[in-house]
Amino acid sequence: MQQASWIAVDWGTSNLRLWAIGPEGQVLAERSSADGMGGLEPDRFEPALLALAGDLLAPERKTDVLICGMAGARQGWVEAPYAAVPCAPAGGAPTPAPARDSRLSVRILPGLSQAGPADVMRGEETQIAGFLAGHPDFNGTLCLPGTHTKWVRVADGRITRFRTAMTGELFALLSTASVLRHSVSIEGFSEAAFLDGFDQAAASPLTLALDLFSIRPASLLADTAPEASRARLSGLLIGAELASVRDFWDGCPVVVIGTAALSQRYREGLHRLGAEAAISDHPALALEGLRAAHARFAKEKT
Amino acid sequence: MQQASWIAVDWGTSNLRLWAIGPEGQVLAERSSADGMGGLEPDRFEPALLALAGDLLAPERKTDVLICGMAGARQGWVEAPYAAVPCAPAGGAPTPAPARDSRLSVRILPGLSQAGPADVMRGEETQIAGFLAGHPDFNGTLCLPGTHTKWVRVADGRITRFRTAMTGELFALLSTASVLRHSVSIEGFSEAAFLDGFDQAAASPLTLALDLFSIRPASLLADTAPEASRARLSGLLIGAELASVRDFWDGCPVVVIGTAALSQRYREGLHRLGAEAAISDHPALALEGLRAAHARFAKEKT
Repeated sequence: MQQASWIAVDWGTSNLRLWAIGPEGQVLAERSSADGMGGLEPDRFEPALLALAGDLLAPERKTDVLICGMAGARQGWVEAPYAAVPCAPAGGAPTPAPARDSRLSVRILPGLSQAGPADVMRGEETQIAGFLAGHPDFNGTLCLPGTHTKWVRVADGRITRFRTAMTGELFALLSTASVLRHSVSIEGFSEAAFLDGFDQAAASPLTLALDLFSIRPASLLADTAPEASRARLSGLLIGAELASVRDFWDGCPVVVIGTAALSQRYREGLHRLGAEAAISDHPALALEGLRAAHARFAKEKT
Repeated sequence: MQQASWIAVDWGTSNLRLWAIGPEGQVLAERSSADGMGGLEPDRFEPALLALAGDLLAPERKTDVLICGMAGARQGWVEAPYAAVPCAPAGGAPTPAPARDSRLSVRILPGLSQAGPADVMRGEETQIAGFLAGHPDFNGTLCLPGTHTKWVRVADGRITRFRTAMTGELFALLSTASVLRHSVSIEGFSEAAFLDGFDQAAASPLTLALDLFSIRPASLLADTAPEASRARLSGLLIGAELASVRDFWDGCPVVVIGTAALSQRYREGLHRLGAEAAISDHPALALEGLRAAHARFAKEKT
């Protein structure tokens, strides 16, 4: 295995993903594991990194490791303080993380914070930096759907404001841990039921808590299929979310950054509300953001 | 122990509660256990009942056992079909439940269903029947806060319509299983934080999913106390709920039926929105509803 010039790491709550970068900027190796921040005590980060990437390190010198994401949270490897918006994404100074292995020089990028309304992100800012590296003139809104969906306003290369919706986490909790689990399948989907739920919630977002419960009686009284109930739950939550962030997408270019299926649902929903959205199909925007930050640090050093 | 003339049972998802009733209608014994419907296969209901009440049964004759609640659900002892609103609460025909013990004659009261918007209840209708037994002329709205809060319109002794909000279940899931669990205490409360969250959600219910997440950055950035975050979460959810059921409480007498602390929060919230609510402090309305139904069945038999 060729030794890495430096290593780019996207360290989230559930997963650890890294890329070994060669002297020409080429990707020598891409690896991932389930050693997410959520399952690690602070002193277990270095062993998790070495287990996944130890053989990529040169024996006689320090290798730069640049990390974004939840590894910089208070419960992570070391807390990397937030940079406050408005600011460039991934533009703040990184925080060194303690490492015993003499081959490691580890730094963690800051997350972003917003004072009012109070909000935070860790990791998405680096994806956004990666997107802006490829689209430096983009002015508009980025939507990053997921466990905690981020809506981010970008202007002149800076993030001006953002909000977080708990849509993905609510979907997971309601479909697996609430009374709705008896009515909702683990897999499967019905486009028609998704759109029906979406339209209802987008038109009447105020009654979301009532309409969510209705999934249960609909299956008890009308034998609604579990796959349709699952899609309806997704539609209700995304419809209510889009209604709550109208100021982000109304009259503004939108790009959705996320997995294909989920991005498609958000684009479809925005389209039904009269907004057009593009989908970014780049497979690793975090890597591009880490590259941009690493290049900047190298330049600052010289 | 004196033998029961009949036994009244409120069998919910988490708990089993029963009263042995004597020949003069007096309560001979009140007992409860954690053998709720949620943990029982259909063939375990009779043993759970006998374990709690076997010594109350006369040896030589059948004792009537009248049950309300989730024991009549599809996953319960036997499914007791729903009665459709509009109708009198607990006014429908009960369903016999199979019992091997020759001393038992078991019947389960129906729950209520509503076709549109689809909704169901099991157990609350019997509490409502108990309330109406004491207040036969009540016309207005009953609010039964809990895991699944019921809002119920009552006119001329009948339930005309109702809706269910998942507020209590959302509170439990968000405070113990979501990212907010890192910011929210298991116990404790702050009245000021509750009211602050309530006012915000009642004024801007549309942004609930965003404002829920804000609890996390507020604790990360401003060190908000976990007890205040817990109260704020409760306030946000109840504020959004009251905004969603305005048609139930606006310009209409409201009585809240529930535990003291939770009922007080709902009354306080309603008061801030300009509506006055009374709190029912009867300790066992389900028992009164079961009494009313039992008396009706005895009368119908003669």
